[in-house]
Parts: sequence; C-alpha cells; structure tokens
Amino acid sequence: GYIREEQPEVLVMLVELDENECWELAATVPVGRVVWNGSKGPMVVPVNFVVDDRRVILHSSPYSELVRDADDSRVVFEVDEVDPVTRSGWSVLLRGRAHVAFHDPHESLPDVDTWAEGSRRLTIVIEVDEVTGRRVAAP
Amino acid sequence: GYIREEQPEVLVMLVELDENECWELAATVPVGRVVWNGSKGPMVVPVNFVVDDRRVILHSSPYSELVRDADDSRVVFEVDEVDPVTRSGWSVLLRGRAHVAFHDPHESLPDVDTWAEGSRRLTIVIEVDEVTGRRVAAP
Repeated sequence: GYIREEQPEVLVMLVELDENECWELAATVPVGRVVWNGSKGPMVVPVNFVVDDRRVILHSSPYSELVRDADDSRVVFEVDEVDPVTRSGWSVLLRGRAHVAFHDPHESLPDVDTWAEGSRRLTIVIEVDEVTGRRVAAP
Repeated sequence: GYIREEQPEVLVMLVELDENECWELAATVPVGRVVWNGSKGPMVVPVNFVVDDRRVILHSSPYSELVRDADDSRVVFEVDEVDPVTRSGWSVLLRGRAHVAFHDPHESLPDVDTWAEGSRRLTIVIEVDEVTGRRVAAP
C-alpha cells in the first residue's frame, strides 16, 4: 500500500464494463482469485485458470480447502490488472457455481497452464451466471 | 487465462513466506482485495490500501456492501504480484476483523491514496491476527 503523497488533483472515474469486455479482459491475465464462503471464514486463493464458453476452469488438489468447501457451492472468480504509473486498472467478477469435473471422455475441457507443481489433478469448473466489471481511469 | 502451450518441463516450487516478508511485500503494491462472507454469497472488492502496524487501512462509501456486511466481521485481505514472463509470483493473505474507524482526534491513521473518486469517506481498519504468504518460483 502506498502512502498518499502530494500530487495534483486528478479526477478519476469508475466505468462499468459490459459482459464481452469482461470476458475479453479476463482472458488476458494468467492468474485470478477464487473466493468462497469458507466454513471457518472467508477464503481466497490465487490460481492459474482459463476461460472457456462462460466457464472458468482451474486445477486443484483433492485435499485442498477449495475442493472440500466449494464443490457445488457459489463462488466468485476475481481478475484484475492495475497500473501504478497511470493509477488506472480494471477488475472483473465472475460469479457462479463451482463443481469438480470428473473426466468424461465425451467432454473436452481446455488444459490449464499451472505454474506451481503439485498434485493438482482435479479440475474445477465454475459455471458463470453473473458477470460484472469496472475500469478505473482518468478521462 | 492462458491456454497451455508447448513448453519445456520446468519444476516450480511453492515456498512459504515468513510474516516479515509478507508485510514487506504487501507494502509494495497499491491495490489489494478485501474478501468477506457476504450475506448473498462470497464477496471480493479490489481497493487501494496502506499497511500500518499490523493493520490494513482502506476507504469505502457508507453505502457500500463492504460497510454493510463486513463491519465487525472477519475478512481476508489478499495481495499478490505475478510475472507472466518468468511464471513466478507471490501472494499474501492478511486475516482479521474489520471495523469502521470513526475519526478520533487522538488516533492518527495514515491516509490512503485512493485512485477512484467518489464518496469514500469512511475508513475501514482490518486488525490483522493471521498472516500467511507463498511464493511460486523456479528454483
């Protein structure tokens, strides 16, 4: 966090993004954050992901809190990008129901480029039903 | 989200960060995400913030869902930074209780450099009692 410094007054606006913009922006970043109402309090985990036909796809370990708490539950997937130099950025919230996808030979899910190694052999699919996004930018 | 492309196999490790590292890293970024168990589902909002003596300080509107839901509640504040080129990054979770700080002339809270304009005249303080962080990096 930055301490406020002396600076000229700049009018900065919050602009709502439409759904297409939200999906397009979400596809440009490699990491997002899955958020759920955990049994022991609010939970958030940054993960690699892909978007595919109104779904968010990510991998997790069978032993993770995400799989334990969030299978068949409502979650939010948050993505954003900020530029400290221009003091601008955007954020997108993708809301929907998460479930563990067991491999069905008839369904092909895109692969996720996962940076961290480990036993992330479960695929989690978030079926998104609500998309919102905002941009912060000087006019 | 990126689709996995052909690439050499790289062993990437998850390394736990200690508390001092977590606080130091959190102070280097201008935006974090406050997460809470919302009454209508999980909630997350990206915000400007400062850290100060094991507290996270941010501003919000009196009419925000954050103020309505999260005053005197447990929240998580998430900060991270990722580098797509080196496929590395870190994330820090600061857990604690949030409350609206009413201005007390005897207590001076640091000011927050808020990018978006608007009526963000309430100060929210998260008293952090649990700090965890991880780094994803090739060895």
